[in-house]
Amino acid sequence: MEIAVTDGIDVNAKKDLQELGHSVSEKHYSNEDLIDGCISEFDIVVIRSATKMTADVIKANTANKGKLSMIIRAGVGVDNIDLSSATENSVLVCNTPSASTNAVVELTIGHLISSCRKISTGDKKMREGLWAKKELRGSELRGKNLGLLGYGRIARGVADIARSIGMKIHAYDPYVKSDQNGCVFHDSVESLFSSCTHISIHCFLSEETRHLVDYDMISLMPKIGDDGIQCGNHIVNCARGGIINEDGLYQALSSGELITASLDVFEIEPAIKSKLLQLDGFQATPHIGASTVEAQSRIGNEIVSIIRSHSNGDIPGSCLNK
Amino acid sequence: MEIAVTDGIDVNAKKDLQELGHSVSEKHYSNEDLIDGCISEFDIVVIRSATKMTADVIKANTANKGKLSMIIRAGVGVDNIDLSSATENSVLVCNTPSASTNAVVELTIGHLISSCRKISTGDKKMREGLWAKKELRGSELRGKNLGLLGYGRIARGVADIARSIGMKIHAYDPYVKSDQNGCVFHDSVESLFSSCTHISIHCFLSEETRHLVDYDMISLMPKIGDDGIQCGNHIVNCARGGIINEDGLYQALSSGELITASLDVFEIEPAIKSKLLQLDGFQATPHIGASTVEAQSRIGNEIVSIIRSHSNGDIPGSCLNK
Repeated sequence: MEIAVTDGIDVNAKKDLQELGHSVSEKHYSNEDLIDGCISEFDIVVIRSATKMTADVIKANTANKGKLSMIIRAGVGVDNIDLSSATENSVLVCNTPSASTNAVVELTIGHLISSCRKISTGDKKMREGLWAKKELRGSELRGKNLGLLGYGRIARGVADIARSIGMKIHAYDPYVKSDQNGCVFHDSVESLFSSCTHISIHCFLSEETRHLVDYDMISLMPKIGDDGIQCGNHIVNCARGGIINEDGLYQALSSGELITASLDVFEIEPAIKSKLLQLDGFQATPHIGASTVEAQSRIGNEIVSIIRSHSNGDIPGSCLNK
Repeated sequence: MEIAVTDGIDVNAKKDLQELGHSVSEKHYSNEDLIDGCISEFDIVVIRSATKMTADVIKANTANKGKLSMIIRAGVGVDNIDLSSATENSVLVCNTPSASTNAVVELTIGHLISSCRKISTGDKKMREGLWAKKELRGSELRGKNLGLLGYGRIARGVADIARSIGMKIHAYDPYVKSDQNGCVFHDSVESLFSSCTHISIHCFLSEETRHLVDYDMISLMPKIGDDGIQCGNHIVNCARGGIINEDGLYQALSSGELITASLDVFEIEPAIKSKLLQLDGFQATPHIGASTVEAQSRIGNEIVSIIRSHSNGDIPGSCLNK
């Protein structure tokens, strides 16, 4: 099959696909070229988040003998793919849902500890020649309530590690109401925020979740830990930009409603002009949740397995068309 | 009793001591003033690491009707106190061994994840206006071997969390040879380093451990994880400066023997002129292992309890004189 890879692929996966007899072309295209049908000669397109498969793009590459029959999202979120248009035009859409789970889990724990202990700030100050020991007093996670907004695979992985740190786990998820590990489930997002000094976001971006976390929601957080310590409020988002209203976040960090906020994802990326970057309690990484050697290797293996199923005429397990 | 506090104390502990009828004077003294006997009018001195209680200082404040009868180290390490001189001059020495354990445990895990995922670097680049997503590919901890040099309270706390992350725990400790949690014990430091892509240091500084970790030792590390992934080698030290030879560390980071190194402690502090700070894979914090609200509160409580015992004529449990 003819495979277009627009946002990169693991080198071993490319080799495996070629050994299976497929042709792999690695090239990034502009939106204009995509709307002009530049990938209509390919059977499969493999994308990450940088390529937008809108209804227009899908139509342009399937109409008039366009061959495109499959979109593979190397990663999880498919908010850059128009699923119903794909289905209408007989294009299968698959993602690699579990390959990056552990990478995001570890990054979330890293952001939580690093922000509460001011590791990035300490490193920055030292490089500026300042031994800022006294201003870097932080707070511990043990004994605090961690509120998980969304309780899917990644959230449950975060919960397991946070529990071993000694945090008490709370969650809100409209589709999950109980588990075997003593997680406290809430009936509303407001109730979750009212109970937790530490919040980590693990839901998808949708019309229901866009700007769900704003200044008013953050103001509900208790500032005093479950252990009675005045640790202030802390928030982490390694899920999707846009779930947090970044103006509200700026206001909450500036006013002390939040002591720290850590974002790996932003409403508009690249987010190098965000005014949040001027604040001390803010910590940022440039959407590197899945950026590990291990995750890229697992994603590559899943892509090979999806294409193998598709070549055999089977429907891959991660097919998202309804 | 008359209590001199030379490096700070938790505000609630000070209040508690005053309510018990003690007089508390907070003031930092120079080495010269200490050698001149400036605290000889006090019964107790409470110090952190910044005050050096050498033999000369102890003699000067106990001789000629000097009243000093107790040194309390707010924290763990007593390498700044001449223990045998204290004993000779009938000065009790106590520390607060467990109060900061969890603070150091969490910081160690934070340094481990943050360095392997380049969180500090990502934050720094974003503040410089760079969306350096592609250069920030990191590696995961799950599936890797974590080698603990020293297996005391802090190391065991780190092991518990690292195990929940999915790391396999290895250790070398001349005084501990087995545990209940499946830790792999090694007969030598060389054997430990040869087996682990990730090393965390948790021993005291002594003549045996000074510069124990040097370029040659680091060169033994395998670079390839237990899961077969080429993750490179990583080292963290939140214990004591001087255990790592910093010249050797610089050489190892520069040559690629190490991918990352994270230090909270340095041979000479404040370490703001360290040439390590010029390297990208390096991450530093200014000796903030115990710098949490929670640890300072627990240390304060322990100090009050030690002074209460001493006032009652009892020998406190954490007394270190032999």
